[in-house]
Amino acid sequence: MDAATRRFLVPLRWSDMDAYGHVNNVQFLRLLEDARVIAFREWFGDERSMLETGVLVARHEIEYLAPLTFRHAPIAVDMWTTKIGGAGFDLSYEVRDPEDVGSELYARAETTLVAYDFRRAAPRRLTPEERDQLRLLEGEPVPFRWRRR
Amino acid sequence: MDAATRRFLVPLRWSDMDAYGHVNNVQFLRLLEDARVIAFREWFGDERSMLETGVLVARHEIEYLAPLTFRHAPIAVDMWTTKIGGAGFDLSYEVRDPEDVGSELYARAETTLVAYDFRRAAPRRLTPEERDQLRLLEGEPVPFRWRRR
Amino acid sequence: MDAATRRFLVPLRWSDMDAYGHVNNVQFLRLLEDARVIAFREWFGDERSMLETGVLVARHEIEYLAPLTFRHAPIAVDMWTTKIGGAGFDLSYEVRDPEDVGSELYARAETTLVAYDFRRAAPRRLTPEERDQLRLLEGEPVPFRWRRR
Amino acid sequence: MDAATRRFLVPLRWSDMDAYGHVNNVQFLRLLEDARVIAFREWFGDERSMLETGVLVARHEIEYLAPLTFRHAPIAVDMWTTKIGGAGFDLSYEVRDPEDVGSELYARAETTLVAYDFRRAAPRRLTPEERDQLRLLEGEPVPFRWRRR
Repeated sequence: MDAATRRFLVPLRWSDMDAYGHVNNVQFLRLLEDARVIAFREWFGDERSMLETGVLVARHEIEYLAPLTFRHAPIAVDMWTTKIGGAGFDLSYEVRDPEDVGSELYARAETTLVAYDFRRAAPRRLTPEERDQLRLLEGEPVPFRWRRR
Repeated sequence: MDAATRRFLVPLRWSDMDAYGHVNNVQFLRLLEDARVIAFREWFGDERSMLETGVLVARHEIEYLAPLTFRHAPIAVDMWTTKIGGAGFDLSYEVRDPEDVGSELYARAETTLVAYDFRRAAPRRLTPEERDQLRLLEGEPVPFRWRRR
Repeated sequence: MDAATRRFLVPLRWSDMDAYGHVNNVQFLRLLEDARVIAFREWFGDERSMLETGVLVARHEIEYLAPLTFRHAPIAVDMWTTKIGGAGFDLSYEVRDPEDVGSELYARAETTLVAYDFRRAAPRRLTPEERDQLRLLEGEPVPFRWRRR
Repeated sequence: MDAATRRFLVPLRWSDMDAYGHVNNVQFLRLLEDARVIAFREWFGDERSMLETGVLVARHEIEYLAPLTFRHAPIAVDMWTTKIGGAGFDLSYEVRDPEDVGSELYARAETTLVAYDFRRAAPRRLTPEERDQLRLLEGEPVPFRWRRR
């Protein structure tokens, strides 16, 4: 795990499983949303500044590497930033077993977030404080296996 | 709409909206799942052959282009195939208003599907019949705007 | 079906199934929400008057009578009213196969709805027009089998 | 809290909120499902014996008492049993703030569970061990306010 990477533990729900008995591929994106909610609170103090009044999801990319079944232990979502620009940034994820549970890597993903001012309903620029925080978390691009060339 | 593209109408649910009052970004992937379920039945006769015993989702990529609010009219999901290989293929989507509702384009997406034999729990090759059907639907790559270079 | 009962067709989603391969018991309540959204639009013209600015769910009761598996055909939700009062009413449901699909009865349910003024954030009284409409739909109490005595 | 009552902490998800900005009434049932999954593991050792191969939900009843908004703190689900019979029992719930968060009571609910043998696909009788465990948790009926007389 890179120095800039932060780990967040996200609980599963039994209902995340689909009729195949695995955590459904769409629910992985839900788990990443949960991880962002937890992370943004830690990174930006009051989560409302970034999560509720500050960023829009512009893009997701996700690769599924191993099937995940419901268990009582949470999953670990490792997160770091890439491509920090004036008006947005990419958030990168690896979904893994926590150390005390196992060593499986279930998914890799990347979300492009765009800074947004919900009161004015318009794109905005990242503040210097936001950029400073995001730079502390800056790491390497996600090593996607399937990405088109 | 390209000759190979097929349009499927997918109903929204009021609960697809999140606390912002928009269809949640994760629920867009759910709508694409619904579209695949409808499409695979049309393309492969008995949907079980491809959907329940035949393909795994290996990857998603999605770009959000306009906010979508719940309405009674369904959304249109235009679908076509790209990158048909021996053991899988890409499915491409555009999520739009149906013609009688409007002309907004809400999202573009792409799913990589891998042929799978659930009884043997092992990857498999596409059958000649599957490849013939998928070739009828073959079109251009999704013109993603945000994709990393 | 009683004269006052109205039938609404509600599409299933593949994801309504849980790891047992049946439509999950919680998702039945989601289907009833979908049915209310469709019904209120028909009954009250502009659904916003009753659904978005007009009623709160105060109570649900539901009995499960037969397992339901995903299929492409919608389910039928038969709905009627009981206990129309000055400030709310009960909505009764039977979840069934549509006539062209079968004759199974999957669930019976009842929702207590309370009239609410979202702008003033306070309970309100039903309008005379709302009461007239609800009376047209008035029927017998739901014949619950398990209800405590 | 009665001597027989057990408290379980259940995390919320941001997505439990609907377009009104409150935890959706249907999602409360999902939170109760989560609470059962946690509780059954504690009460019956290996949760599979009761949850995955042992009980069916036959009925829910729920009353909503106060609106709940997403927050990082979990909610407390207090649970106890009533009406323990030969082939099933009722599980009662109160959904509250944990002590360190507040003192609001959000909902009261009751679920009728029927013992079931999934391998034989048939109802079964509770085992003596299951009845002994359930009797330790036996309490008063839920004081529903809206229940029909």
